[in-house]
Amino acid sequence: MNFCSHCGAPVRLSVPEGDNRERHVCDQCDRIHYINPNIVAGTLPYHEGKILLCRRAIEPRKGYWTLPAGFMEMNESTEEAALRETLEEACAEAEVGPLLSMISVPQIGQVHIFYLASLKTGQFAPGEESLEVALFAPDEIPWDDIAFHTVRKTLRFFINQNCEFNGRPLSGVIRIPEDRATKLQSG
Amino acid sequence: MNFCSHCGAPVRLSVPEGDNRERHVCDQCDRIHYINPNIVAGTLPYHEGKILLCRRAIEPRKGYWTLPAGFMEMNESTEEAALRETLEEACAEAEVGPLLSMISVPQIGQVHIFYLASLKTGQFAPGEESLEVALFAPDEIPWDDIAFHTVRKTLRFFINQNCEFNGRPLSGVIRIPEDRATKLQSG
Repeated sequence: MNFCSHCGAPVRLSVPEGDNRERHVCDQCDRIHYINPNIVAGTLPYHEGKILLCRRAIEPRKGYWTLPAGFMEMNESTEEAALRETLEEACAEAEVGPLLSMISVPQIGQVHIFYLASLKTGQFAPGEESLEVALFAPDEIPWDDIAFHTVRKTLRFFINQNCEFNGRPLSGVIRIPEDRATKLQSG
Repeated sequence: MNFCSHCGAPVRLSVPEGDNRERHVCDQCDRIHYINPNIVAGTLPYHEGKILLCRRAIEPRKGYWTLPAGFMEMNESTEEAALRETLEEACAEAEVGPLLSMISVPQIGQVHIFYLASLKTGQFAPGEESLEVALFAPDEIPWDDIAFHTVRKTLRFFINQNCEFNGRPLSGVIRIPEDRATKLQSG
């Protein structure tokens, strides 16, 4: 951040009064610009004993399998974001279940949240960001080709606990090597 | 947002290619500026059958009681953010327990997350943003003077379920009247 997004003047890094961290502050209009983590919300769609996965059509991790998920937008809830992403990436209408996992990825400023979900009709198709979409039995999951740590952890938690809408959520932190973090961030 | 925070040129609202929402885009450096919800992380500190609350020294809702919580920062996990806020607002060292609640407040672009926590020593004191800090038995909670809907809901969930580190998390959405939302946002 180099310029104030409100008035266009250059910003500088300083610790505002009553704060304990450096922020981008504007000396012209006195605004403080905070940078905070983003939420990635998604679902683990479960249908007749199988799990729906999407093969990514975009970077990062193009060609790898993932659960439908994406950045939460303004004016929606985490549940709405998760269902919207399921519709956008897998063309699947789903009903949201309980929270399965909330995993922080501090180096890239993200928190990944996955809900268990059930498919309303069993119909699905690749959305614009997916190459293909398919259902996998727990013993068919392509573990070596899963796109992200947080997706792998969520899948393992669901399959191992076999929690079936009754499990406690998985909560954790994934710290990834610096070079990988940079790659993910720029993607 | 009026100006590009990277190059200082004026931004305009348009729907980027492959997107379906209006974003602030810069025609000079081609950057897209996304606005996403923020996470507020906190704890419900539980100590010898009582719950720790802080009376707010700052707006919004100055003078009202709340659970220690605040905006999650970059380079920390949700759990770390919750414990940091507990230390900053209540000068209390706590150990994080399971997730109690995750409640979306769409109109102000926030997601509130509360963990159950236990006090390490039982010592606490008002931090800079608190007028006072005190322990309340479940039947002593000042329900009429609780600062925020999400705090009230989290307290009710914990007390009614008496979940004691074993409950399922509360997940929900709070939609507040437009005038209240504006007030909270500006505070």
